[in-house]
Amino acid sequence: MSEANPLERLTLELGRLPGIGARTAMRLSHFILQRSHEQQTQQLPTNLGQDLGEALINAVAKVGLCQQCRNFAVDTCCTICSDRGREHRLLCVVEGVADLNAIERSGAFRGVYYVLHGVLSPLDGMGPEALGVDRLLELITNTQVDEVIVATNAHVEGDATAMYLSRCLQPHVARVTRLATGIPMGGELEYLDRSTLDRALQQRYEIEAF
Amino acid sequence: MSEANPLERLTLELGRLPGIGARTAMRLSHFILQRSHEQQTQQLPTNLGQDLGEALINAVAKVGLCQQCRNFAVDTCCTICSDRGREHRLLCVVEGVADLNAIERSGAFRGVYYVLHGVLSPLDGMGPEALGVDRLLELITNTQVDEVIVATNAHVEGDATAMYLSRCLQPHVARVTRLATGIPMGGELEYLDRSTLDRALQQRYEIEAF
Repeated sequence: MSEANPLERLTLELGRLPGIGARTAMRLSHFILQRSHEQQTQQLPTNLGQDLGEALINAVAKVGLCQQCRNFAVDTCCTICSDRGREHRLLCVVEGVADLNAIERSGAFRGVYYVLHGVLSPLDGMGPEALGVDRLLELITNTQVDEVIVATNAHVEGDATAMYLSRCLQPHVARVTRLATGIPMGGELEYLDRSTLDRALQQRYEIEAF
Repeated sequence: MSEANPLERLTLELGRLPGIGARTAMRLSHFILQRSHEQQTQQLPTNLGQDLGEALINAVAKVGLCQQCRNFAVDTCCTICSDRGREHRLLCVVEGVADLNAIERSGAFRGVYYVLHGVLSPLDGMGPEALGVDRLLELITNTQVDEVIVATNAHVEGDATAMYLSRCLQPHVARVTRLATGIPMGGELEYLDRSTLDRALQQRYEIEAF
């Protein structure tokens, strides 16, 4: 790591973040140093650069993966897995922690999760080991799970991963399901893409008589 | 500073950066922790979160403002001001360090700079003191400066700041100039905004006979 110029090094490191190019990285590092300068002259209580730096080092040191579900966790077990009020017999497999958070925000799910941290993608070196499929199988055989909901995203890789997982899981669990694909609530047919409409037609359901 | 959850704290701190909303902040913190996890399991040499954290703390601690031109500098004097090969009698006043870098990249300027770190904006509390106008005047009276180029951006605040500066500087320096405004190289009239065309017409120049 070059120690030549702290400003250049900061810009370089910021540029390693996804979606942040060289220009934005420079703008950000200028912003941080500008704020730091203002903080020193005006004696403000917080220094963004210092705070963010400490938060980064702290997070990297303290946050690991939950031993059970591979969610981010400060302890060996995440808050969801250690919550006894949740339905531990219902397991939802997601691609990433962001997906887990989205489902949690919906409030529609009271089971537990398993985070793959990716999808099957042999070209990128993402095989079943990287996704922790062996640990998922272990988890299912060791604990009583009635149903696994495979909630990988509705794109080609997500579908392929779901297919693979269902083949692995079906001998060990009574139900393996997948989230429904179709028209999103509030969506208008006119603006929907072909593949969504195609799926919505294929998976149409009978209107129950009332 | 809440120490409750390092992940939440990191997301919060990232969200303080300009142009990074709550969603992007969460995506970034997930990315950083994911990378950190991969680094630990695959024993890669660098850890993005750790590196970026150190770079931030290091930059904030070491980078200050050049005592002469207020550019970012590790020492009391920045590399430009301490370069004896530059024309110290030609001073270019810029809004920010990004503007200074843009001019440096062009290679068209061999003088020195003065960084305002903003423009006059009374509503935001940006007065002449915040811009360091007194130090600029001091610099000009103490050192021999033949010309000051006011290179603030070509918008209302930039123009107003340039007007104000030229009034302050004119008694002390032979020439106070402003960057030309007009059609950018490669620009097409058809797609230019009205105000740029207006300026280009006002500042039209005689074609020299050859």
